[in-house]
Amino acid sequence: MSGARDEIEELIALMARLPGLGPRSARRAVLHLIRKRAGLMAPLAQMMAHVAETARECACCGNIAVGAICDICENPARATGEICVVEDVADLWAMERGGAFKGRYHVLGGTLSALDAVGPEELGIPKLIERVGAEGVREVILALNATVEGQTTAHYIAEALEGRDLRITSLAQGVPIGGELDYLDDGTIQAALRARRSF
Amino acid sequence: MSGARDEIEELIALMARLPGLGPRSARRAVLHLIRKRAGLMAPLAQMMAHVAETARECACCGNIAVGAICDICENPARATGEICVVEDVADLWAMERGGAFKGRYHVLGGTLSALDAVGPEELGIPKLIERVGAEGVREVILALNATVEGQTTAHYIAEALEGRDLRITSLAQGVPIGGELDYLDDGTIQAALRARRSF
Ligand SMILES: [Zn+2]
Ligand SMILES: [Zn+2]
Repeated sequence: MSGARDEIEELIALMARLPGLGPRSARRAVLHLIRKRAGLMAPLAQMMAHVAETARECACCGNIAVGAICDICENPARATGEICVVEDVADLWAMERGGAFKGRYHVLGGTLSALDAVGPEELGIPKLIERVGAEGVREVILALNATVEGQTTAHYIAEALEGRDLRITSLAQGVPIGGELDYLDDGTIQAALRARRSF
Repeated sequence: MSGARDEIEELIALMARLPGLGPRSARRAVLHLIRKRAGLMAPLAQMMAHVAETARECACCGNIAVGAICDICENPARATGEICVVEDVADLWAMERGGAFKGRYHVLGGTLSALDAVGPEELGIPKLIERVGAEGVREVILALNATVEGQTTAHYIAEALEGRDLRITSLAQGVPIGGELDYLDDGTIQAALRARRSF
């Protein structure tokens, strides 16, 4: 019946809402899925439904979690007294791919922006300050993007933490001006972490 | 628990198997999906599961169908006595977007290739010849890609249909040399259809 094309069109429209896929590439992707419907489409649909049902924000750090608290916050080995502050979960993943950082994270979910009414509350900065006390944190690494917004936010956090017995550092060497963490190779991130300097 | 990252990594790996998405863009897509899990991820998973379960190849023309026979083959208004032969379903969709063709299709699923052991049987050419008789077809439009393989296949089909009371035409004006139908704009396809010439 005539529902077939409508449903496939609806699937294409949903796929086209993914970043990096336009209407044309969404159509090709759906056609590919239909061709591989047993080997790819069915497992993908199932995994997607499962993750949609179970994934949520970690109540502690803002990472993606299954359940209330994420893997990293639950892992006692990651209680190193270091918190790495990142703009979003993609940046956390980029740091984890590097594998050089053994501590925990704080995911801001963006940068300060007067224009978009994003203040410290929206970014969980009071929560970060609370964690610094509660978790006995000795170092906060500000791993924000090397953009104006990222650096403005980093300065704000550094000032908010001033006066505590705490090292505040930032990624230094290797992050190019205007560069975004998620687009860097793993080696660059590792080098930048090793050469981190006091903020 | 530690299953969270594994499941998300598995979802990223499945997404990375889509054409046009590499590992990095798959990661971004999955992150986007998790952020929009109620509004996008859940409906997408549901529609994907539904299509995976219901979509199949039309037993008549090779188009994608829900049930045994596709929308176009089921529609009596499309019994115009014209069959448009295309290489794959993406090309059928490209023709339908143009909206100029009112008849039915025959989807080959590829082109003749000695190297890949793709012969007339694999492309459903005997089935096409059978349809020409059974459906009272007066015109076969060979809308194959303007590539060497496409044109070789078109010549083979034209010869196989020789001697019948039948017009055999091909898309002519507007299809650039080496061009593939699915990448053409709708206007070009319409013009090529209008200016079709005897094969
Ligand atoms: Zn966490
Ligand atoms: Zn059909």
